Amino acid sequence: MAVYTHLGAHDLAGLIAHYDVGELISAKGIAEGVSNSNWLIETSGTGSGSNRKGARLILTMYERRIEPGDLPFFLGLLDHLAAHGCPVPRTIHDREGAAYRTIDGKAVALIEFLPGVSVDQPTARQAFSVGEALARTHLAAGSYAQSRMQTLGLAAWDMTIHDCGRDALAGIDPALPDIAFDELSFLAGSWPGGLPHGVCHCDLFPDNVLMLGDRVSGLIDFYFAATDFFAYDLAVTHAAWSFDSHGRQFRDDVSKALLAGYESIRPLLEYERSALPVLARGACMRFISSRADDWLNTPPDALVTRKDPMDFARRLQFYRETGALAFTGGSGA
Amino acid sequence: MAVYTHLGAHDLAGLIAHYDVGELISAKGIAEGVSNSNWLIETSGTGSGSNRKGARLILTMYERRIEPGDLPFFLGLLDHLAAHGCPVPRTIHDREGAAYRTIDGKAVALIEFLPGVSVDQPTARQAFSVGEALARTHLAAGSYAQSRMQTLGLAAWDMTIHDCGRDALAGIDPALPDIAFDELSFLAGSWPGGLPHGVCHCDLFPDNVLMLGDRVSGLIDFYFAATDFFAYDLAVTHAAWSFDSHGRQFRDDVSKALLAGYESIRPLLEYERSALPVLARGACMRFISSRADDWLNTPPDALVTRKDPMDFARRLQFYRETGALAFTGGSGA
Repeated sequence: MAVYTHLGAHDLAGLIAHYDVGELISAKGIAEGVSNSNWLIETSGTGSGSNRKGARLILTMYERRIEPGDLPFFLGLLDHLAAHGCPVPRTIHDREGAAYRTIDGKAVALIEFLPGVSVDQPTARQAFSVGEALARTHLAAGSYAQSRMQTLGLAAWDMTIHDCGRDALAGIDPALPDIAFDELSFLAGSWPGGLPHGVCHCDLFPDNVLMLGDRVSGLIDFYFAATDFFAYDLAVTHAAWSFDSHGRQFRDDVSKALLAGYESIRPLLEYERSALPVLARGACMRFISSRADDWLNTPPDALVTRKDPMDFARRLQFYRETGALAFTGGSGA
Repeated sequence: MAVYTHLGAHDLAGLIAHYDVGELISAKGIAEGVSNSNWLIETSGTGSGSNRKGARLILTMYERRIEPGDLPFFLGLLDHLAAHGCPVPRTIHDREGAAYRTIDGKAVALIEFLPGVSVDQPTARQAFSVGEALARTHLAAGSYAQSRMQTLGLAAWDMTIHDCGRDALAGIDPALPDIAFDELSFLAGSWPGGLPHGVCHCDLFPDNVLMLGDRVSGLIDFYFAATDFFAYDLAVTHAAWSFDSHGRQFRDDVSKALLAGYESIRPLLEYERSALPVLARGACMRFISSRADDWLNTPPDALVTRKDPMDFARRLQFYRETGALAFTGGSGA
C-alpha cells in the first residue's frame, strides 16, 4: 500500500479546477489500494455564505492492474449502486460530465469520501450488517446495464497455479502443491453452473468495508467487480470474514450472522445454498493462486507486505472438512 | 513514505477514548513522514447539538530515528510556537494532560490537522511568506524553555562521510568524494561561532510547509528541530527553496523574496548576514552526508525513493562559486 506517483499542488489544483467542488484546501496521499495511488482531498466546496460546505473526496490514480477500458464499468457501477441506496461512494463527474480524466497518461477519478473505519475483528452484529449490505448490492446490480467478464475465475486460478509450478509452491510451503493441484482437479469437476448471477464485488474483505459502530457506512474498492454468481460473492465474503486473518480459527457466530444478514435481504435459492461449500472452496483457491503468484514475484525486501497463501489453504482445509456444516451452523469449530 | 505499523479500528478507538475529541469516524493511513507512521483521523468532536463540530487530527506513531526522550521537547515546541501565533499544529493532550501515549511499546501523539498543500515550485510571494514564518518561529523560540543538542552538525557530517568512505561515495558519483572531503576541510576551518541561536526547524523544505495560496497555513515536521544558529536555519531554508529540486537552477527571485520575508520580521545582524555563504555550504553538506548514507544503505529495489546526494553537491558548487552574491541578489545565475 503506497502512493506510487508524486502529484504536486500545482497538478492537483489544475485537476480540481475541472470539477465543481471549489478550491483545493488539503491533499494527503493515503496508504490504501494496492493497484492505485490515492489522495484524501479537501476542497472549499460549493455554495456560498453559510451554505458553503467543504467537501472531502478521494482522488484515485489508476496505476496498474486496472485496464482503462474497464473504468466506465467500475465508475458507473459506483454511481448505479449509490443511486439504488447502497452505501457506495459516488463518482464525482467533471464539468463536462466525464467520470475520469487523465494526468500524464494515467487515468484519475474523484470519488466521494465516506466516513467509517475498517474493522479487524468483526462482531456478529457487524457481520450481519455486512451480509445485508452485500445482498443489497446484488439486488441493485440486477438493473446495472454494463457487465464485466470474470477474469479471476477457475481457468485463471488453474493457469496461475500451473505457472507457479510445484517446486516454487513447495518453496512457500511443502504442503501447498498437493493442496492446490488436488483442489483444482476437484473444482474442475464440481463447479456449479446456472446460478443466479450479476455484477459482484468479489473482494469484500474487512479492509473494503467501512463501518460506524455496527452499521456499514461504506463498501469500497470495487476494482475486482465482475459478473459472477451472487452465491460465489457471498462465499468470498464468508471466507474473508468468518476466520481470523490467518485462517486458523473459524468464527461460527460471525459466519451465521453474515449468512443471516444476507438472507434477510435476499434469501438464497435452495440450489445456491447447496452450492456454497464448493463455491467457498473456489473462493479459497482464488486467493491461494493470486497470493502464491504475488509471493513468488514480490522481492522479499520490498516494502509491501506479502500475504501468505497458506492463510487461505487453511480456510480451504476447513471447508473441505466441514462441507455444508460450515453454512448451516453445525460446524462448532 | 509509508505506514509502517498496522493499527486496527479497535486500537484506534481505544486510543481516541483517552482524549476529549469525541468518537472515531474515520482513519486513513497517510503517506507522510519518513520516520513515523501517520493517520489522518476524523472524530465526532466535542460540544453538543449544533455546537458539535467534527475534529480532524493527525495521529503520529514514532517508529525510528526519534528518541522517545526527545518527545517532550518536540511536542512542547509545537505547543509553544502555536501559543506564540506561529502556524504550527498544536499537540492534543489526553485527559490526564499527557502529550503522548504508548501503543505496543511505541509512542503515539495526536496533533492538530492544518489545512494547506505543499508547493513544488514556489513563487517569490510564497517564498516571502515562508521567510516571514521562519523568522516568527525564531522570535518565538527565544522563550522556549527546552533545548536539544544539534546531533546533525559538522561533527556528524564529517563522521558520516568518513563512514561512507571514498570508494562508496565514488560509486554514487565519481566527483562526490573530492567534493565532500574538500568541503569538510573547508568547513572545519571556517565554521562561525557565537551567532544568535535558539531552537531551529533545521529541515524546512517545501514538503514541510503547508500553503493556502501565498499564505503559510502550516509549518510541520519539527522532528529535526535542535538548538542551532538562526542564520543556519535560514541557510538550510535558502538551500531547500531557492533551487529546482535537483539543484541545477538557482532561482534568484525566490532567494531574494525568502531573505526579504525573513528580514521583514527579524532583520539579520551584519555578522549573521556575512556568515550566510559558509552556513549555506554547511547546509549542503548536511544533506549530502545524510543522503549519501541513505543511498548506500537503502536497497535499490526498496519502495522508498532514494534522494540523490548530488542534488546538494550542485547547490554546494553554486554557493562556492557565488559566495556572498547568492545572498545579495547579484548572482544572476
